[in-house]
Amino acid sequence: MTTRSVAAQTHVAQRRDVEAKAIQVGLIGLGTVGAGTFHVLQRNQAEIRGRAGRGIEIAMVAARNAERAKAYQAIVGDGLPCVGDAQQLVDNPDIDIVVELIGGIEPARTLVLKAIANGKHVVTANKALLALHGGEIFALAREKGVTVAFEAAVAGGIPIIKALREGLTANRIEWIAGIINGTTNFILSEMRGKGLDFATVLKEAQRLGYAESDPTFDIEGVDAAHKLTLMSAIAFGVPVQFGKAHVEGISSLQATDIKYAEQLGYRIKLLGITRRRENGIELRVHPTLIPASRLIANVEGAMNAVVVQADAVGTTLYYGKGAGAEPTASAVVADLVDVTRLATADPDHRVPHLAFQPDAMSDTPVLEMAEVHTAFYLRLVVADQPGVLSRITTILAEHDISIDAVLQRPGAGGTPSGGRAEGEGPTDLIILTHDTVEGRMNDALAKMQGLPTVLAPIVKLRKEELA
Amino acid sequence: MTTRSVAAQTHVAQRRDVEAKAIQVGLIGLGTVGAGTFHVLQRNQAEIRGRAGRGIEIAMVAARNAERAKAYQAIVGDGLPCVGDAQQLVDNPDIDIVVELIGGIEPARTLVLKAIANGKHVVTANKALLALHGGEIFALAREKGVTVAFEAAVAGGIPIIKALREGLTANRIEWIAGIINGTTNFILSEMRGKGLDFATVLKEAQRLGYAESDPTFDIEGVDAAHKLTLMSAIAFGVPVQFGKAHVEGISSLQATDIKYAEQLGYRIKLLGITRRRENGIELRVHPTLIPASRLIANVEGAMNAVVVQADAVGTTLYYGKGAGAEPTASAVVADLVDVTRLATADPDHRVPHLAFQPDAMSDTPVLEMAEVHTAFYLRLVVADQPGVLSRITTILAEHDISIDAVLQRPGAGGTPSGGRAEGEGPTDLIILTHDTVEGRMNDALAKMQGLPTVLAPIVKLRKEELA
Repeated sequence: MTTRSVAAQTHVAQRRDVEAKAIQVGLIGLGTVGAGTFHVLQRNQAEIRGRAGRGIEIAMVAARNAERAKAYQAIVGDGLPCVGDAQQLVDNPDIDIVVELIGGIEPARTLVLKAIANGKHVVTANKALLALHGGEIFALAREKGVTVAFEAAVAGGIPIIKALREGLTANRIEWIAGIINGTTNFILSEMRGKGLDFATVLKEAQRLGYAESDPTFDIEGVDAAHKLTLMSAIAFGVPVQFGKAHVEGISSLQATDIKYAEQLGYRIKLLGITRRRENGIELRVHPTLIPASRLIANVEGAMNAVVVQADAVGTTLYYGKGAGAEPTASAVVADLVDVTRLATADPDHRVPHLAFQPDAMSDTPVLEMAEVHTAFYLRLVVADQPGVLSRITTILAEHDISIDAVLQRPGAGGTPSGGRAEGEGPTDLIILTHDTVEGRMNDALAKMQGLPTVLAPIVKLRKEELA
Repeated sequence: MTTRSVAAQTHVAQRRDVEAKAIQVGLIGLGTVGAGTFHVLQRNQAEIRGRAGRGIEIAMVAARNAERAKAYQAIVGDGLPCVGDAQQLVDNPDIDIVVELIGGIEPARTLVLKAIANGKHVVTANKALLALHGGEIFALAREKGVTVAFEAAVAGGIPIIKALREGLTANRIEWIAGIINGTTNFILSEMRGKGLDFATVLKEAQRLGYAESDPTFDIEGVDAAHKLTLMSAIAFGVPVQFGKAHVEGISSLQATDIKYAEQLGYRIKLLGITRRRENGIELRVHPTLIPASRLIANVEGAMNAVVVQADAVGTTLYYGKGAGAEPTASAVVADLVDVTRLATADPDHRVPHLAFQPDAMSDTPVLEMAEVHTAFYLRLVVADQPGVLSRITTILAEHDISIDAVLQRPGAGGTPSGGRAEGEGPTDLIILTHDTVEGRMNDALAKMQGLPTVLAPIVKLRKEELA
């Protein structure tokens, strides 16, 4: 084919698009998700157009990495402008929707705000940006009458934002509990399945590409807390307030506790939990024991799942891949279709960013962890002496905390023994409690920790029945 | 309070509603789901208004049962008109949305068509009506520029229609497999858990209200096929065509086969499966062996779950209550909110009824069962003689069907025996095959059935890896 005929074809194709009024998308970022979005839009363009009623076309790309951008130009032809400076893209008057896929706070925040100020809709997968600056971004979007869509920011390709914001509109949502970080779920699955410790499995996860070289955001629960903050806002009609989330990761979790939990019929998962209580909203990420019979307890590897408890529908669960190029692209493109459909609609009739109309938002407070209701798993290393269990259970009783189960095992350092002779080495004492208020548990723990027969820092994990 | 002050209050309330432009809903049917819808709208009206940006108000009710209607009048006051003749409701010019919850084909079909003809949006939970007459209904709705919403028709409160039609728009959907009938899943769970036979468990299910007194539609797979037909149309952009579905229930399923399946690592579920193949679409409901390790294999009792496999997002799963008053009402009200939001939008920009714009629908054929690809579980009752297994495996090999696993057990009538003496009573021979075309399997089965050593009709169940 001659250069000339290619140019002619491109021209015809361009004219046809104008006739069909294809919506013009500017793509910022050609990393994993950016490339995935590009591929999905190319490969499924006929189906996507058939659903959206209008073509969705990438009109411009902004990427720091010029080489990568060039590779994509080779696919779509030289017609696609690729710029190194994303500012040019958000200022381009031909762009209808800006897709932000660079992640992090800056320059993403500035670019998104500028795109909105320029009257463009925004689609983003940037949970950190929205969890920290969602208030500012949604307010400006409202003022400008544009939509900021963020399905890809939570649980990858699982349409959980849509389910919460549109599918469950009839309900008063009671709580959400989610496995919303694939890296940590992979690590926990491996620790349980192979009986390995955290550090060993983390290295394996990094080798396999399930964990980044600096895994802090994942393993310390920060990424999960970003996503939870967004779900909480949507579920309860409150502003995004990441700063008030309790964030606890899995880096100090020990294989011993995973084993004991299993013996008691539980699995340990890093859960993001948000729950409406009478006096406020719980917003917390931490390792959690859940009964092994629950469906979500059986979500293994890098998969994600979110359980939603709501008053009319009861329990629903949403499961799928929470990360990766194409699963995340699936959510980005679904948002592009939604925005394309609604671009012409009156802004007041679009789905509100945070599910509730701005004047229907509530200022229900986020509760301090000390006020949170939950059950506990405690592991105490105690001297194997008569009366130890009695002293500990008395302290719990004094704090009005009732016991669900007790398990006693020879300590990690000791030898198995049925005997009770004094000083025969430390014993592991595992206690499951019923629900209590965390502050009360902390008081009891301080007293227990002070006992001379308690030989090591007490391990405290939270336990949820999720029923 | 005097009659006069009530009237005055009603007047003020009415004026306020006009100011807020509450959308006016006419509710046909006050059975389980109708009552549930009523309760949910009442109880959560503040949240629903906060999400929809507009009140949603039941303005008129049509119910055959005057007593029941009166009970609801007692709740909302005498202001709510309740008619015995639904025709009056669909002709009422003040009604914006008609909610049809009477089920069955007539008079539902006539009422829905009349409501549409009168320019009203329709929300319905009626899977039978849409699976059989969806083409006619959606065409008229399109002509009149109104929406027919039917989230409640499939899998109760699980927002699966929304997930398929909006959440996964980026994807080429490959297959859907769903537990979409709670009655049969309850029966299968009980048969497996307690080792009971079908008839015993059915009686128990009827006693508990999980099965109707005439359970035919549920246990013979018809209800599941209605729902599957709708999902298939939405997934693949084809018209609804219930008549072409393969429908097979669980009434002839034997406890023996559930037991053998379990020994081989499988569970038996009544699945609705629709899959895109090169030469057409598979559309089939039948008992199916699935690996016990799959999440969907662990969906127990009356719960529903749908697995969707799509090219970008991979596997996603949606789980929840598939029936009941409030779970179904959850879907009805979600549809009401959607319609309320979009009522003012240009019809061309609303979500298409069958996910694809009418001009993007395809005429891909639905495949005959003989053309379907699947794996099989076979149970043969054979004479315990040398050479029996060899003859059977030879027939399978001649038909190019490869074997995955073989299990041999003393027959139900025989005594356990390790020996191989001729004529020592019948033996159960269980064979799992790899994927093949069903027509080829049927040919092989005919040959096997003709062998003098095959003593009873061969049990044939389909097996899917769902991966």
